[in-house]
Amino acid sequence: MPIVRLALGQTNPVVGDLEGNRAQILAAVRAAAEQQASLVVFGEMCITGYPIEDLACRESFITAAESSLASLIVELKAANLGHLTVVVGCPVLAAKNMRSGWAIAHNAAIVIRDGIELGRYFKHHLPNYSVFDEYRNFVAGNELFTFEHHGLRFSTVICEDIWQAGGPVAKIAGNNTDVTLVLNGSPFEIDKDDRRLALVKGLAVQQNCAVAYANLVGGQDDLVFDGDSVVVDASGKLIARANQFENDLLLIDIENKTQLHQVTSRSNAKQDDDWQAYNALVLGLRDYVHKNGFKSVVLGLSGGIDSALCAVIASDAIGAENVFGISMPSRYSSDHSKSDAQDLAERIGCNYETQAIGDLVASFESQISLSDTAAENLQARMRALILMAKSNSEGHLTLTTGNKTELAVGYSTIYGDSVGGFAPIKDVEKTLVWQLAKWRNSVAEAVGKIGPIPANSISKPPSAELRPGQIDQDSLPPYDVLDALLEGYVQRRESRQQLLQQGFDAATIDRVLGLVDRAEWKRRQGAIGPKITGMAFGRDRRLPITNKFRN
Amino acid sequence: MPIVRLALGQTNPVVGDLEGNRAQILAAVRAAAEQQASLVVFGEMCITGYPIEDLACRESFITAAESSLASLIVELKAANLGHLTVVVGCPVLAAKNMRSGWAIAHNAAIVIRDGIELGRYFKHHLPNYSVFDEYRNFVAGNELFTFEHHGLRFSTVICEDIWQAGGPVAKIAGNNTDVTLVLNGSPFEIDKDDRRLALVKGLAVQQNCAVAYANLVGGQDDLVFDGDSVVVDASGKLIARANQFENDLLLIDIENKTQLHQVTSRSNAKQDDDWQAYNALVLGLRDYVHKNGFKSVVLGLSGGIDSALCAVIASDAIGAENVFGISMPSRYSSDHSKSDAQDLAERIGCNYETQAIGDLVASFESQISLSDTAAENLQARMRALILMAKSNSEGHLTLTTGNKTELAVGYSTIYGDSVGGFAPIKDVEKTLVWQLAKWRNSVAEAVGKIGPIPANSISKPPSAELRPGQIDQDSLPPYDVLDALLEGYVQRRESRQQLLQQGFDAATIDRVLGLVDRAEWKRRQGAIGPKITGMAFGRDRRLPITNKFRN
Repeated sequence: MPIVRLALGQTNPVVGDLEGNRAQILAAVRAAAEQQASLVVFGEMCITGYPIEDLACRESFITAAESSLASLIVELKAANLGHLTVVVGCPVLAAKNMRSGWAIAHNAAIVIRDGIELGRYFKHHLPNYSVFDEYRNFVAGNELFTFEHHGLRFSTVICEDIWQAGGPVAKIAGNNTDVTLVLNGSPFEIDKDDRRLALVKGLAVQQNCAVAYANLVGGQDDLVFDGDSVVVDASGKLIARANQFENDLLLIDIENKTQLHQVTSRSNAKQDDDWQAYNALVLGLRDYVHKNGFKSVVLGLSGGIDSALCAVIASDAIGAENVFGISMPSRYSSDHSKSDAQDLAERIGCNYETQAIGDLVASFESQISLSDTAAENLQARMRALILMAKSNSEGHLTLTTGNKTELAVGYSTIYGDSVGGFAPIKDVEKTLVWQLAKWRNSVAEAVGKIGPIPANSISKPPSAELRPGQIDQDSLPPYDVLDALLEGYVQRRESRQQLLQQGFDAATIDRVLGLVDRAEWKRRQGAIGPKITGMAFGRDRRLPITNKFRN
Repeated sequence: MPIVRLALGQTNPVVGDLEGNRAQILAAVRAAAEQQASLVVFGEMCITGYPIEDLACRESFITAAESSLASLIVELKAANLGHLTVVVGCPVLAAKNMRSGWAIAHNAAIVIRDGIELGRYFKHHLPNYSVFDEYRNFVAGNELFTFEHHGLRFSTVICEDIWQAGGPVAKIAGNNTDVTLVLNGSPFEIDKDDRRLALVKGLAVQQNCAVAYANLVGGQDDLVFDGDSVVVDASGKLIARANQFENDLLLIDIENKTQLHQVTSRSNAKQDDDWQAYNALVLGLRDYVHKNGFKSVVLGLSGGIDSALCAVIASDAIGAENVFGISMPSRYSSDHSKSDAQDLAERIGCNYETQAIGDLVASFESQISLSDTAAENLQARMRALILMAKSNSEGHLTLTTGNKTELAVGYSTIYGDSVGGFAPIKDVEKTLVWQLAKWRNSVAEAVGKIGPIPANSISKPPSAELRPGQIDQDSLPPYDVLDALLEGYVQRRESRQQLLQQGFDAATIDRVLGLVDRAEWKRRQGAIGPKITGMAFGRDRRLPITNKFRN
């Protein structure tokens, strides 16, 4: 029996960029053919990008997606690639709502060979939790699709199908499948690589088949698809692992379900969590910038750790020459704020300027009398005016540098430091901000370079510097306590009672829960940013603004 | 056989205000008892408020809701109201997710009598379209609940159950039900009253029973529940209709399924669409303000129609003495802008002051050089600084006065005129803004009062006045064309091709579609506001920001 050379194509589609996405697929099939592969499998919805959200209801969108699929089939054949079996993901029309005229679509896997479709698989389990709205946007299928290729039997399923019990996946073993092809749009979360791999191994053993798990890569709004496509044999042994956070083509030779081999030697070791989290943030930012037609970003540099980390992420993502940092000291800014900001800019080599806000604030205050809170907020808002003026004048995307802890408790000025189109560390809690800053410096230092983030920005007590001598800890619990409490209340949805049992102080609990709930209106108006945890603010956590419940 | 006097309790719950909601229910039952009613039915989730969104996953929330239900049962009995049969809506625990520890809840109707629960009905059809995420937040039931009361048979179902085919509703006729009690959380949309009534009539005829349809009333974030509870007999004849947009107790005497009578004479006539739309906006604003603990609002008064309508809505909602209007003229503001704003304030009697932005803008421009766009936006943002300073100093909720048409095409300055916690006319397209302004004036004039909105604000060409002589129509198609086009593209999700077939100009279509799609990031950061159409911006329409599809 001949060996089947399988390729997993890890592409980075842009939602709605049908031409571009198809070009990526074609290039990957061509590269696979040059490497003597005969079967290529791609990620979920690689034709349209993912998730398409309510575009699934637009008949014109589904029709265009199906046309692009048809073009791909023609182009594969025209490029003398018709002999390869190619498996792609695409939404397809299931029906039409007769009253509204809106489309009703399947989330499909399509198997292509010799210029025709061999068949289609329709996703069965439609995730409708966390960030997913697939029950809203698709209708389910219920049949496994199986095909023969060079003497082996392959079955196709899609992403959530292997995370839930029952459905077509349960029929794989009874179907004598040699290799299950799983098309995925599985966004990154810290620790998710381990859960995914365990799941894939479990599937292989339970259904007695090898499994090829092909994931997308790339940032799409608040999601980062990390790739990390894997292949395991029917005993559950990991055979090969694609690169994380970049386009890749993973090649595997398959003799049978228990005999699989890497074609080019790769390490199957996973990277540590800090590396993964940091690279997710870099890719999320890079893709948001480029996929939305920006070339550069502007952000305020305060000398603090949050803006420093954002600037370094941005420099790693799009090049320091495309990063514009502005120091905007006020009358309350310490000398170290200005020097630390400048030091950072020099270390990373980004563009840097200073715009003091003292005169602007004074001009405003001479006209309008302000309460203490209003006066504090005014400073943050005057800085926002400067950032947005630079953005409007020079075309930069504005980054907002708030972290997850601030966002949780509303420790920011709306229309002030919260302004911007993208929030690079929105899902990074304060203690993780420090950890990633230190990690990033250590990576530089390990290869003999200077760490990009000034030690002083890491070590000094955080302060908004909106009044004399202010530090965050005047009005918030210590960040290690606060982050642990927020993990319980926000991430794990624990109650006051559960938090008390964990030893948190009652007054602190009540104060923090009130802050979190009352900040919901601000979070609703916040910029999107990359999700890297199991519970990000945004569509992952949907709560009313008007809500009197505190527990 | 005795006549059953049925009461429909139209209460206005606040999400999470378990004490307050229960007090409303108790008061309504007491009032019903005083009117000799023996059966009282309330709206969906009247115990907790609705929708509770992801609070449904918090075990502490569901437990608290069930405790409140238990308290209600005790309190009814203690108040010598135990002999009444009372039907309320409440989420109840169905199971617990063993991995996450999160609650899995039913959306339930609970029938109470003599200090015990007679039984529970679990909602079967869980709406997961439009603004609803119930498949995300609940698990479905599948059994009809039927009980006897004074010789008649009653069955309970919940809201969406009567909008979809199949499920427990289909079993009503076979069950010899005399009266179906439908508990609803049905938000207002223009024209929905007609659709609802037709549906209720259809249900009565198909299932051969009278129907008592009890709806909630009140604003909850972006939704306005309009009440409008109705009772029809088994022939589909409308017997009685509760008031729209206010708390009410509707009393009906039931002999049998075809013999029902109003207790106190009421008109069953519906109000016209302008009245309904306007009152929905008033109630939506009033409840957002009060339920979130505000007493007053601040808004910019430009002399234009949008801010004028918002100020009048606010005055009608919370009293003109609680409305603070600020005129913020720039060097480009026309004389009529200032005089029309002042005229409006005098007509409605709200607080009014002027803060010219010329010096503030000049101070900024002397420090930072600006492109034309940046200079235009700066003016809007300087005004935002003033509004937010007033809000922070004096505790007012800031209103943003943008209309739906502006929001659609991104014709606003983010962090400028878009700032605010609530957007009263967010779902009102520009042509409807004019229509409602004229309607509101005509209502005043019909009773011999002066119309609150200056005629000049209605008749003059709209302008942002951000540069000399600018009018909206310089950069946008005429509003009647634009609104018609947006109805097709946004509301009806039509394609470029469909719009061409309707006679729209190709260049206009392409321009507007591009504007709409590119403004998605701004809309994501916008304030919430009351939904009054079938397709509002916000959770009703979920589209990616990163999206290259234009059709």
